Amino acid sequence: MRRAMELAELGRGWTKTNPVVGAVLVKEDRIIGEGYHKKFGGLHAEREALADCRSRGEDPAGADLYVTLEPCCHYGKTPPCTQAVIEAGISHVFVGAEDINPLVAGAGIRQLREQGILVTEGVLQEECEYQNRVFFHYIQTKLPYVRMKYAMTLDGKIASASGKSQWITGEAAREQVHRMRHEMTGIMVGAGTVIADDPMLNCRLPQTKDPVRIVCDTTLRIPLKSRIVQTAEEQNTIIATCCQDEAKIREYQKYGCRIIVTEHADGKVDLKELMRQLGADGIESVLLEGGAMLNWSALEAGIVNEVYAYVAPKLFGGADAKSPVAGIGVDYPDDAYCLVSQRVQQVGEDILIAGELKNK
Amino acid sequence: MRRAMELAELGRGWTKTNPVVGAVLVKEDRIIGEGYHKKFGGLHAEREALADCRSRGEDPAGADLYVTLEPCCHYGKTPPCTQAVIEAGISHVFVGAEDINPLVAGAGIRQLREQGILVTEGVLQEECEYQNRVFFHYIQTKLPYVRMKYAMTLDGKIASASGKSQWITGEAAREQVHRMRHEMTGIMVGAGTVIADDPMLNCRLPQTKDPVRIVCDTTLRIPLKSRIVQTAEEQNTIIATCCQDEAKIREYQKYGCRIIVTEHADGKVDLKELMRQLGADGIESVLLEGGAMLNWSALEAGIVNEVYAYVAPKLFGGADAKSPVAGIGVDYPDDAYCLVSQRVQQVGEDILIAGELKNK
Repeated sequence: MRRAMELAELGRGWTKTNPVVGAVLVKEDRIIGEGYHKKFGGLHAEREALADCRSRGEDPAGADLYVTLEPCCHYGKTPPCTQAVIEAGISHVFVGAEDINPLVAGAGIRQLREQGILVTEGVLQEECEYQNRVFFHYIQTKLPYVRMKYAMTLDGKIASASGKSQWITGEAAREQVHRMRHEMTGIMVGAGTVIADDPMLNCRLPQTKDPVRIVCDTTLRIPLKSRIVQTAEEQNTIIATCCQDEAKIREYQKYGCRIIVTEHADGKVDLKELMRQLGADGIESVLLEGGAMLNWSALEAGIVNEVYAYVAPKLFGGADAKSPVAGIGVDYPDDAYCLVSQRVQQVGEDILIAGELKNK
Repeated sequence: MRRAMELAELGRGWTKTNPVVGAVLVKEDRIIGEGYHKKFGGLHAEREALADCRSRGEDPAGADLYVTLEPCCHYGKTPPCTQAVIEAGISHVFVGAEDINPLVAGAGIRQLREQGILVTEGVLQEECEYQNRVFFHYIQTKLPYVRMKYAMTLDGKIASASGKSQWITGEAAREQVHRMRHEMTGIMVGAGTVIADDPMLNCRLPQTKDPVRIVCDTTLRIPLKSRIVQTAEEQNTIIATCCQDEAKIREYQKYGCRIIVTEHADGKVDLKELMRQLGADGIESVLLEGGAMLNWSALEAGIVNEVYAYVAPKLFGGADAKSPVAGIGVDYPDDAYCLVSQRVQQVGEDILIAGELKNK
């Protein structure tokens, strides 16, 4: 199953609103076929593994199938996988997570059992569920899964007192973040970041795709000359605003930007409403790359699902140096936004501390 | 050797200016004796292990000795350990770190070899040296080894915006910090911390000792009614100041405080000079427990040897919430104070990131 999970990761970023899934066929202690869901609309992992098996000249009949997610039993972009599994004569299926898609939700497993196939459920279940937490969240809520990501020093600074932030973390961490831009559907920043850094917010790694850019700009103040606006035809760009000035909005639209207007929430873009609209548009995940003020607004609005904090083993000092989350903040330590299930990982010289936010 | 290192830790806090040392006697793959340097003035680890061996009714002749630090060969509070090792008929000695004390410095090992004892040097050398980094630093520089310690949230806050800091970390981390107060000779804070929190800065764990309290108070403004001043007779207390007002100084002295007057350095207590005086007084290690301003001054003065940052997996937010190091800060990321050899450790629900500071 670990191998199946590894395979699943290969599809990360390409499956759109589909989950990432990996599958491994085993016969007499030998792997005779491997596959993963490569691309939205393409074959599912089980069929990929069966095809791989046959191309190796192996016979899947009587084999064991390890699959990270319950095989589907409905006609979608592709015919049901249960059918392929049954036809191939698989004798035992090991399933990681149950598919909570209401079109499946246990029916896939039931169908296999009805055909006399042995099914073992819940193999590395927690890890398989975690692997598809974005998919599960989106299918249940129709809201994007939001990852707040930032890089800071060991004394909690995201820039020096003079405002310099290049670079805080090392190359390995920066590459990992670029990979996230490919893996997640959207990337969100505040207008302040666009004005200060004029970033592209694209993914500069080979064989990857760019995320949809989402800029929260309450008063529609980012310059038309900013690189984001200028390249909106090449990379999807959404500007969320409270500004209702039609003429002003049209200026941005001319460059290809899409404008989402929301009501005010505490004088700013209503992030909850924005998430509903992004979710309805099929944006299932958003990488939130701050500013400190937007990070706080997002926390307060309750739209953040998890936090990825890269901590560089260095100190900047500086009473005026910015820290990752600003705003009003909580009054008491007991009111803190807490992480659950945190994971700590060394990434090059830096340390990644990640975890999902506990519901408040 | 790992076992010897574990044993050495049992003496931590009690050996004063002596190193912590552990020793294990092995014969025919069996441990026949264990010991550690328990207390300044008491038996050294090697003699403890030999005594333990004999009390078990075992014969050390022909045994192997594992010892974390080179055996001493000079008369100090106790006679030389090399003598005891030779007399016991040990056949092979495995040494962790070489003792850089000029009275030893390889002479112990030489003496053993001259007596026909096999000596293997440098077993887990780096780890054994790290274990006694305080001792090595102090004996070489006569300056205290300074550990900057703080607890912060994952968004870099040491208190909420309203100034509340109890508690950021969980019980396990807080207990570990209390143990440090026993293990290190001194504890240092700024006047602001005394005024704001009125702390005792003692060690509340059983069978431990209290550190010498050192308060940096440029203008001598901490209240005479503060608990630290009031209990100065029971727990050694040093106030470092630039104030030369004899009458004012006498007020604090009446309560048993010792006053160290230094010149101004950037308008504050000269921390380098203070360290020289503390070192001359036999204070070999100092736990620096902030405030943010003192942390910066200490970094800038170059007196900090290592950093222990406890990171709690929670977010406070707050543009006005304090972060661990204030002051002016560095201008550019490349000017940061960098950690080397960092270690990451889960402590209860919190994460400890520790490392020595690279020389600037």
